[in-house]
Amino acid sequence: MSKVAIIMGSISDMPVMQDAIDILKQFNVEVEVDIVSAHRTPEKLFDFSKNAHNRGISVIIAGAGGAAHLPGMVASMSPLPVIGVPVKSSNSIDGWDSVLSILQMPGGVPVATVALNGAKNAGILAAQIIGSHNKKVLDTIISYKEELKAAVNKAAESLK
Amino acid sequence: MSKVAIIMGSISDMPVMQDAIDILKQFNVEVEVDIVSAHRTPEKLFDFSKNAHNRGISVIIAGAGGAAHLPGMVASMSPLPVIGVPVKSSNSIDGWDSVLSILQMPGGVPVATVALNGAKNAGILAAQIIGSHNKKVLDTIISYKEELKAAVNKAAESLK
Amino acid sequence: MSKVAIIMGSISDMPVMQDAIDILKQFNVEVEVDIVSAHRTPEKLFDFSKNAHNRGISVIIAGAGGAAHLPGMVASMSPLPVIGVPVKSSNSIDGWDSVLSILQMPGGVPVATVALNGAKNAGILAAQIIGSHNKKVLDTIISYKEELKAAVNKAAESLK
Amino acid sequence: MSKVAIIMGSISDMPVMQDAIDILKQFNVEVEVDIVSAHRTPEKLFDFSKNAHNRGISVIIAGAGGAAHLPGMVASMSPLPVIGVPVKSSNSIDGWDSVLSILQMPGGVPVATVALNGAKNAGILAAQIIGSHNKKVLDTIISYKEELKAAVNKAAESLK
Amino acid sequence: MSKVAIIMGSISDMPVMQDAIDILKQFNVEVEVDIVSAHRTPEKLFDFSKNAHNRGISVIIAGAGGAAHLPGMVASMSPLPVIGVPVKSSNSIDGWDSVLSILQMPGGVPVATVALNGAKNAGILAAQIIGSHNKKVLDTIISYKEELKAAVNKAAESLK
Amino acid sequence: MSKVAIIMGSISDMPVMQDAIDILKQFNVEVEVDIVSAHRTPEKLFDFSKNAHNRGISVIIAGAGGAAHLPGMVASMSPLPVIGVPVKSSNSIDGWDSVLSILQMPGGVPVATVALNGAKNAGILAAQIIGSHNKKVLDTIISYKEELKAAVNKAAESLK
Amino acid sequence: MSKVAIIMGSISDMPVMQDAIDILKQFNVEVEVDIVSAHRTPEKLFDFSKNAHNRGISVIIAGAGGAAHLPGMVASMSPLPVIGVPVKSSNSIDGWDSVLSILQMPGGVPVATVALNGAKNAGILAAQIIGSHNKKVLDTIISYKEELKAAVNKAAESLK
Amino acid sequence: MSKVAIIMGSISDMPVMQDAIDILKQFNVEVEVDIVSAHRTPEKLFDFSKNAHNRGISVIIAGAGGAAHLPGMVASMSPLPVIGVPVKSSNSIDGWDSVLSILQMPGGVPVATVALNGAKNAGILAAQIIGSHNKKVLDTIISYKEELKAAVNKAAESLK
Repeated sequence: MSKVAIIMGSISDMPVMQDAIDILKQFNVEVEVDIVSAHRTPEKLFDFSKNAHNRGISVIIAGAGGAAHLPGMVASMSPLPVIGVPVKSSNSIDGWDSVLSILQMPGGVPVATVALNGAKNAGILAAQIIGSHNKKVLDTIISYKEELKAAVNKAAESLK
Repeated sequence: MSKVAIIMGSISDMPVMQDAIDILKQFNVEVEVDIVSAHRTPEKLFDFSKNAHNRGISVIIAGAGGAAHLPGMVASMSPLPVIGVPVKSSNSIDGWDSVLSILQMPGGVPVATVALNGAKNAGILAAQIIGSHNKKVLDTIISYKEELKAAVNKAAESLK
Repeated sequence: MSKVAIIMGSISDMPVMQDAIDILKQFNVEVEVDIVSAHRTPEKLFDFSKNAHNRGISVIIAGAGGAAHLPGMVASMSPLPVIGVPVKSSNSIDGWDSVLSILQMPGGVPVATVALNGAKNAGILAAQIIGSHNKKVLDTIISYKEELKAAVNKAAESLK
Repeated sequence: MSKVAIIMGSISDMPVMQDAIDILKQFNVEVEVDIVSAHRTPEKLFDFSKNAHNRGISVIIAGAGGAAHLPGMVASMSPLPVIGVPVKSSNSIDGWDSVLSILQMPGGVPVATVALNGAKNAGILAAQIIGSHNKKVLDTIISYKEELKAAVNKAAESLK
Repeated sequence: MSKVAIIMGSISDMPVMQDAIDILKQFNVEVEVDIVSAHRTPEKLFDFSKNAHNRGISVIIAGAGGAAHLPGMVASMSPLPVIGVPVKSSNSIDGWDSVLSILQMPGGVPVATVALNGAKNAGILAAQIIGSHNKKVLDTIISYKEELKAAVNKAAESLK
Repeated sequence: MSKVAIIMGSISDMPVMQDAIDILKQFNVEVEVDIVSAHRTPEKLFDFSKNAHNRGISVIIAGAGGAAHLPGMVASMSPLPVIGVPVKSSNSIDGWDSVLSILQMPGGVPVATVALNGAKNAGILAAQIIGSHNKKVLDTIISYKEELKAAVNKAAESLK
Repeated sequence: MSKVAIIMGSISDMPVMQDAIDILKQFNVEVEVDIVSAHRTPEKLFDFSKNAHNRGISVIIAGAGGAAHLPGMVASMSPLPVIGVPVKSSNSIDGWDSVLSILQMPGGVPVATVALNGAKNAGILAAQIIGSHNKKVLDTIISYKEELKAAVNKAAESLK
Repeated sequence: MSKVAIIMGSISDMPVMQDAIDILKQFNVEVEVDIVSAHRTPEKLFDFSKNAHNRGISVIIAGAGGAAHLPGMVASMSPLPVIGVPVKSSNSIDGWDSVLSILQMPGGVPVATVALNGAKNAGILAAQIIGSHNKKVLDTIISYKEELKAAVNKAAESLK
């Protein structure tokens, strides 16, 4: 089955990115996790980006903070869909820097951006991408939506 | 083959959204186009969102401006990957309203957001999603990246 | 007498939304409270919005955070005045996301937006709406304004 | 029947505020229009605010730009619901000044804020407030929503 | 000698506004302090603003948070120079609301705005205004600047 | 009588700063006008700032755009009240740069900031400062406020 | 003598970047100009960045718009000082995206950022860097500052 | 060898600026450290700026918060490259004030701006400037980049 690669610019992004790992494991989607820094390991960035689609990976999730170049640089070299997770790092200007440097990619090189610190949604989106051509994963997503609904309904009940 | 649905909240979004249609046609990906307003045709929104995955559609692109609820509401009801295009509409506050109301989705319901007015990138991303399990479309993306490179190199030559 | 429905997108909004409940109870205005998530319980959103005006409700208060679609989606389906409360949720970008996705509604579908976390004011505004055609509630508002004044004057006295 | 007062801080706000007048006339709601400047005619502001509810007015719409104090100051003195329209005036900082100085009212004194330059929505909201206790106006709103839907559907048809 | 009136919209602004009181006392400038809420005590606002210049006051310092209308409303009614202090209150959107609703006054009605929470500077500015026609206060300001310099030089020495 | 010095960082600021000159001439307040660039003529900045109070000047108005250091640097060296006018220059980021670099002065060195491009208000504020100890100028301000009121009332009449 | 490389992400950045070329030519500093797109010619980016310091280049100026990754990616691979020019491109969100994605580099990999569209200043800064160890270029900078001063003084004279 | 001067506007900036000192010491680059306040010690600012290049200094690092005028004012008077560090001080508006008042310098007077609180990067950039004409320092930078890479690779290993 399809595999999702989850990479991040720094080990300090792990507490945020763990959410993507967890939800994909819950969905029984295979993941591989690595640290690839656009600014400190550019050669690894190149190797990773150029070869991912030849290694059985079908979606890449990349998280980074500040002037976050990792998702966009991976997208420049990989033909796969790249999901970007803006991480609110310590010296970030309220997260605007990571959001804008991931979202505002030029025409030709998209990054599928999710909310600030939205690694969980990145994982779900990766599953949806796989689900778009895999009935079993699609059904998992459909069930997940039912669970979300049930949780809200239960909370609503608790009010009464 | 997989089909991409392109919807928008208003006919006035068409000049921006046309870029998505054009690039997907260039990539030989089948598209269907419709106007679905979250705020003015909520029943159509429901019908569209609940049934798209049963009609041979594998990716949804939704564009909207201002308090842009269309992409998120489709994502709440469809198990398919939803790509959101923030449109800079006339009374927008510099586009921030559409960007934030598409990007900042709560945990559980992702929207793959692209740049402000980035419909072209939405189209490319949709193709990448299909390409993640379709070798022919993947090759189209790889070729497209080569064309982008060639165009830059040609411009660089012209400087000399 | 008229009833005010107070809904919120998540149980986590309750600490903020409680202020609306409290002030309306203080004003002897009847309230009903529920959790309705635009993104997780869309069917309930539809049922609620389409029927509220037939159930003796005259004003709806809807609170939500992040990409806050609840107030606008209710407003798209209910003919009643809808008051939106932007809630500053945990991963919010300083509250701008909820403010803009509630405030910047397109022409045709207004949401009466109050300040960030301004549930108390949402409650007062709901009472003012009822008071616009109910002498008793209007007088309650007039008295309330006198109390506000008295409290300031008392604080001013304490300085001397 | 209930009357809506539409006031604005300057004659230069009229091109924006005309939308409120037009939609209310379309809805057969009686309006009165005046210029009341919080900063240049403070006595008129006092007279207007203190007496509006005794003159058959049930909703006040107030539009202003820049450091827009008119809606909030009317709300401080009138028990009626006050709808604020942030106007993007010439030296405004992209409209943020009028939006924030109308929206962010302190606890106790709400202003029902609509979108930047959203005078049309202010008019609809005023009608909804009247409609909350007036069946005929409520039905007008319900019909208006049907018209919005029909217009979108017609535009959608034109695509095919 | 000239007197400075220091007013604030709420007793909760006192921790910030105390800095203005302290520096003016240090400069031997007479102050009076009061709470005047634009939104909760509008009549007091009128009385204060219309009469201050007849009571021996030559400068007014007004501090307020959120949609901060106090400084601008005082300026609309008093011919005296009004210094506005934007206070970062609890539900403020990072202080932008108070800054913009004090700073962006329309042509004709200035407010001399200082930095967010800059009550100390408001006090110094008030003294400078008095000093512009009072040699003794001017000399106090000149001395104060020497003290600032000496403190920096002392800190610089401590580095060596 | 007191004189107001109006300086600006560049001749390109003149179209904005002319408003300050005009209103002060209308008020019969003596002005002198000069170009003093903090970044290009620092010696002139020093000479001007250190001596203005010895040359019969009682208020300084300084306008500048972008990273606008002129008002703050004058304030660092002159004991007089300094009014800063943020000018929206060509490559400004929507005016935020000039607003923040004038407004956010550190404790000890205030600049009385007016609205973006608010040179007219800077002139009025300078007159108010003089008026705080000069009955004739105070009366001019009082009359001016009456004129503002009359103009609004006339515009209001024209609506009827 | 030292050479400055001026690169940009797209030929459309040339109208802005020309200012850097012009000022360096005026200063008699040798320049080479090229188009290197981080997102469309990543291999060229690598080659350029890894080798520039071995080709007689001592400073790199890199201009780009939107999610501007070029300056930071060059800085990740070159040991030379890299000056970044944020370019306000067509779909930019008011320039904030390019400013933040160039400025907010993580610890370890600096980019010397200049103002939005500030290519002229990038050229001057490059000359200052060379001038820091080259007396002739330093003297050119000193003369240039005198010219700036003379131009301001001349404009000031024209006012009188 | 070349020396780097590190100055800051206040002793309270030291915890941030220490990072610049530390990294330069690690690189064996000579530093001198001082406090120079643009607003409180303007004469020292003049002396420092006019003479630094005659005292064996080749790069200046200046850190300041709020309306941060220090880097720009030094740049106005020194022909040396000036690196500006925006410091997020206590009453800063989220750091935007210091960022914009350092970055947005007018044409003719550049400041090489680094990230908010980015003193470490300022130190590295200063070393890179020296390294652009000093082989030994250049090699230090090259080694440093290798260390950054090794640290990331080690962290990546730890994941497995």
